[in-house]
Amino acid sequence: MAEHKLPKGFLANGINCGVKRKRKDLALIYSEQMCRVAAVFTNNVVKAAPVVLARQRLKKNPQVRAIVINSGNANCMTGRQGIRDAREICSRMAGLIGAEDKQVLSSSTGIIGQTMDMDPIIKGMPVLIEGLSRKGLFAAAEGIMTTDITSKVSSSKFSSGGKTVRITGIAKGAGMIDPSMATMLCYIMTDANISRQALKKALLHSNETSFNAITVDGDMSTNDTVMVLSNAEAGNPLIGTRGKDYRLFREHLEKVCRDLAQMVVRDGEGASKFIEVNVAGAKSKKDAKKVADAIAGSLLVKCAVLGGDPNWGRIASSAGSCGVKFDPDRIEIALDGVTFFKNGKAVVQVNRRSSSVFKGKNVRIDVNLHAGRGEATVYSCDISKKYITLNSFYTT
Amino acid sequence: MAEHKLPKGFLANGINCGVKRKRKDLALIYSEQMCRVAAVFTNNVVKAAPVVLARQRLKKNPQVRAIVINSGNANCMTGRQGIRDAREICSRMAGLIGAEDKQVLSSSTGIIGQTMDMDPIIKGMPVLIEGLSRKGLFAAAEGIMTTDITSKVSSSKFSSGGKTVRITGIAKGAGMIDPSMATMLCYIMTDANISRQALKKALLHSNETSFNAITVDGDMSTNDTVMVLSNAEAGNPLIGTRGKDYRLFREHLEKVCRDLAQMVVRDGEGASKFIEVNVAGAKSKKDAKKVADAIAGSLLVKCAVLGGDPNWGRIASSAGSCGVKFDPDRIEIALDGVTFFKNGKAVVQVNRRSSSVFKGKNVRIDVNLHAGRGEATVYSCDISKKYITLNSFYTT
Repeated sequence: MAEHKLPKGFLANGINCGVKRKRKDLALIYSEQMCRVAAVFTNNVVKAAPVVLARQRLKKNPQVRAIVINSGNANCMTGRQGIRDAREICSRMAGLIGAEDKQVLSSSTGIIGQTMDMDPIIKGMPVLIEGLSRKGLFAAAEGIMTTDITSKVSSSKFSSGGKTVRITGIAKGAGMIDPSMATMLCYIMTDANISRQALKKALLHSNETSFNAITVDGDMSTNDTVMVLSNAEAGNPLIGTRGKDYRLFREHLEKVCRDLAQMVVRDGEGASKFIEVNVAGAKSKKDAKKVADAIAGSLLVKCAVLGGDPNWGRIASSAGSCGVKFDPDRIEIALDGVTFFKNGKAVVQVNRRSSSVFKGKNVRIDVNLHAGRGEATVYSCDISKKYITLNSFYTT
Repeated sequence: MAEHKLPKGFLANGINCGVKRKRKDLALIYSEQMCRVAAVFTNNVVKAAPVVLARQRLKKNPQVRAIVINSGNANCMTGRQGIRDAREICSRMAGLIGAEDKQVLSSSTGIIGQTMDMDPIIKGMPVLIEGLSRKGLFAAAEGIMTTDITSKVSSSKFSSGGKTVRITGIAKGAGMIDPSMATMLCYIMTDANISRQALKKALLHSNETSFNAITVDGDMSTNDTVMVLSNAEAGNPLIGTRGKDYRLFREHLEKVCRDLAQMVVRDGEGASKFIEVNVAGAKSKKDAKKVADAIAGSLLVKCAVLGGDPNWGRIASSAGSCGVKFDPDRIEIALDGVTFFKNGKAVVQVNRRSSSVFKGKNVRIDVNLHAGRGEATVYSCDISKKYITLNSFYTT
């Protein structure tokens, strides 16, 4: 990961402050200059306190200097005390870095329903600031992890008006994002000089093909957050909502988002295989997404992939269960490039061709409904016994 | 199960004809007199051939003499050949019992996408008829099983105009009905003299609180079928859509349906615990059902129950993810009667009270949204490693 660098003017750090026993549990993303911010939050009715607070603040003042993230406690279903705790984290950090309260945001991830243990976090903040550095990117990526096995960092760069613009992001996932609704957090930093509107537009676009392509039915956890911060330190001419430089920015942002989203899926709890579900020929893009979500989210399909079992009947059945109308006789199903059903007939007898399909680390499911031009891709992972073990004993 | 009896005029049988290696795979339900029929079928876009055929036939002629059910092959995604095979099963049986083709229906359950092996079924039919008996009820219940561990039979009776009316049903489930969409089949026989309209009305009502209370979002497999047959042999005065006798009939039908539905959940693949999810205080009954479905269907909740882990945060999170609006600060969550969240605060610290909750074979989740009077109950089961094993290697 050595090639990934923070954009100009950004520093970061991650430490163990004591919320968790040994692993890093507190991270800081810091910009020397004020940042414009765009963000996407969970659409869950139950929102964690820092999400409630961040949404409020960004509506009034979409500019920040720092983001503090703790893992180990989600600060969710914690009532008014939760909001007070989120506020305090922000104001303490603001005091330490010489910013206004509203210019600091926070995120939390971990167990739901327990009041925050604030002491270790407050005591950890000066240590966190002390250690801020450009290389702190990797420590920060570790600080936001929960049951993730690997930290997730991605970056990209392009040239705008003779200046190098960098986009660098960190993320955490784990839990099989769907249907388990484990928290997904992502922070993207860029030194691009870009208008807030353009930043927002590019984020919404990139989110669709990345983080929204790994959640089913738009279900999200109580804490999910994707933020992008730009501090204009690259010195490029201002990027607006149109034109070549906007398209370049969007393209590279999308690349970073998709990269991180795929890392999240690959690191799904207990996951051993990465599943790409492509649906084509739907009446609309929305229909295609619905069908892809249904297949990617089917527990039986996940089990089949785990077992290397080309059980295309389950794929047809889950496609047919999501409310999207299509003619089952026209559906075409291919697994890892081998067609199993076409023109109302099974093409390959399951038992004869099962040798190659679903045996690799990366598997592909292609479904064509032959009903229109709508297309969608959704990424998923298999489910394993390890997932069950991990999630049977999480709080106690 | 010795106390369960077939209603007057019904005979049944179940045999191994050779679709499967050893276990029974062919069942017959037979009535000496013509039956009125009401049925509910899967709403999956992908429907198995016998479902397509039965729907067609019941629209024109809701009267039957016999139902043939095979397990081992679902006759689904089998194109025109599948429809021809379903027709042939019905017409051969009709010939053997001296009925018209349209007076026989069939069902299939098993693997999707393989053309039926008709030989053993055709050869088995005379044997099946030969062995028809009143005690054959239990053999029939075995004949429709797939990965079910136990056969499922339930019955009830009441008095109408001085006559005893019996209602007796058999079912098969397995697979964790949701989200795996394993096929659920149920056949209910009654000797009640009841109008077709009343039969239909009573079935739709009973279905809501039984079989529809174990499926999430109304998702169903490709073959799901619930049928009720009445042959009027009890000799009671005709039951219409109203009055005391209708209510009695409906009550006893509902009891049989709920009984069978709960057996299906308890026998979920690899299930070790039975979960009852009660949602109250929703704005509407529909909202309550949605929230109950979301909780009952959550993989993380199922894992928590398996592990005996009172992780109420996951319950709140899944409730909040289904699109139903409520105030998270007013939600009340109790597990096995112990309140964990109320008035915006955690009541019991998870670690201290985890000793009793979710430890028994039957667990209860009560959620009150405090937003209205809508109520719903949904039944579910935990998920285990055995489920993963069973479903990783099903076809191959």
